[in-house]
Amino acid sequence: MSFSPLIRQLIDALRILPGVGQKTAQRMSLQMLERDRSGGLRLAQALTRAMEEVGYCRQCRTLSEEELCPQCADPRRDDSLLCIVQSPVDVFAVEQTGFRGRYFVLKGHLSPLDGLGPEAIGIPELLGRVADGNFSEAILATNPTVEGEATAHYIAQLLIPKGLTLSRIAHGVPLGGELDLVDGGTLAHALAGRKTITL
Amino acid sequence: MSFSPLIRQLIDALRILPGVGQKTAQRMSLQMLERDRSGGLRLAQALTRAMEEVGYCRQCRTLSEEELCPQCADPRRDDSLLCIVQSPVDVFAVEQTGFRGRYFVLKGHLSPLDGLGPEAIGIPELLGRVADGNFSEAILATNPTVEGEATAHYIAQLLIPKGLTLSRIAHGVPLGGELDLVDGGTLAHALAGRKTITL
Repeated sequence: MSFSPLIRQLIDALRILPGVGQKTAQRMSLQMLERDRSGGLRLAQALTRAMEEVGYCRQCRTLSEEELCPQCADPRRDDSLLCIVQSPVDVFAVEQTGFRGRYFVLKGHLSPLDGLGPEAIGIPELLGRVADGNFSEAILATNPTVEGEATAHYIAQLLIPKGLTLSRIAHGVPLGGELDLVDGGTLAHALAGRKTITL
Repeated sequence: MSFSPLIRQLIDALRILPGVGQKTAQRMSLQMLERDRSGGLRLAQALTRAMEEVGYCRQCRTLSEEELCPQCADPRRDDSLLCIVQSPVDVFAVEQTGFRGRYFVLKGHLSPLDGLGPEAIGIPELLGRVADGNFSEAILATNPTVEGEATAHYIAQLLIPKGLTLSRIAHGVPLGGELDLVDGGTLAHALAGRKTITL
């Protein structure tokens, strides 16, 4: 035994954070207690408000405490383009590329073995969003995993008959990588999807 | 712009944690919001209570919300042995070795250039503790850095005249390391402090 009860409770509570083990939680606790109590209190307040007030955007289903998230509320974005992603963090990743269309956020991917069918991941809401909107193209930006591909395929089958152009983000070698570190499947995609160079 | 204001505030607040940058703070926020809101609220509560209620042990000056920390309150510990460390986290490290004497926690090390003299790091309180206690030996367990050594040396000069045996933790090669990865200074200490092997 060594820490007093409140410090022990704080260390235990910090361990719910991803990537934080016993040792890191100790370091975090003691650093806040010794050097930044006001920062610790601000964090407590931000946590409480976020956990209690953040819900989901009515339109795109990303995390938001407003009825409409910043992306859905912005009138200057392209209403003809819909980007379909698996989780709110992917919205942020796609935003950083400069994409300025609309989003729809699924609740993960289809996973029949875990009992996650179309209803569980929000396909009915996606169909409703497409029916309400005026999209000409839907970009399937689910993860490049087996489940993500299957989910993309399933959605394409539903949306193509509705007259939308469906596209899938490109697979290939990532920028800045080295060719011999890229797995065979990715390299096969990169070769099959090669582009002619024009001068 | 991408996250709603409350999520942005949570991400900013998480960045006060040591080792947590923008990307990690995002991952932490979204994981709590999507999977563990009750854990997030528990963390907020633990933070608030710890930041507001944890103070310092009256006797050894480690972090504690009780007037006496668990180590000082325990009547079964060895009252003749005092271990002097630089920070509360060091108490935990020494505890794990099985040490069962008493502690005194300095507020860091002497650092005249930063204006941290004997008063700033708690030397008067240390002298008071030694005068009140009944110690026969004081172990100087400040960090093995130039400042830690200087602080240990300074304390030794004050306490030896009071009739205490003063000792310094041993310097040498750490267990499980490789000799060619150990720096020259450490290896010189390890050689100078070599021990005769008896069968």
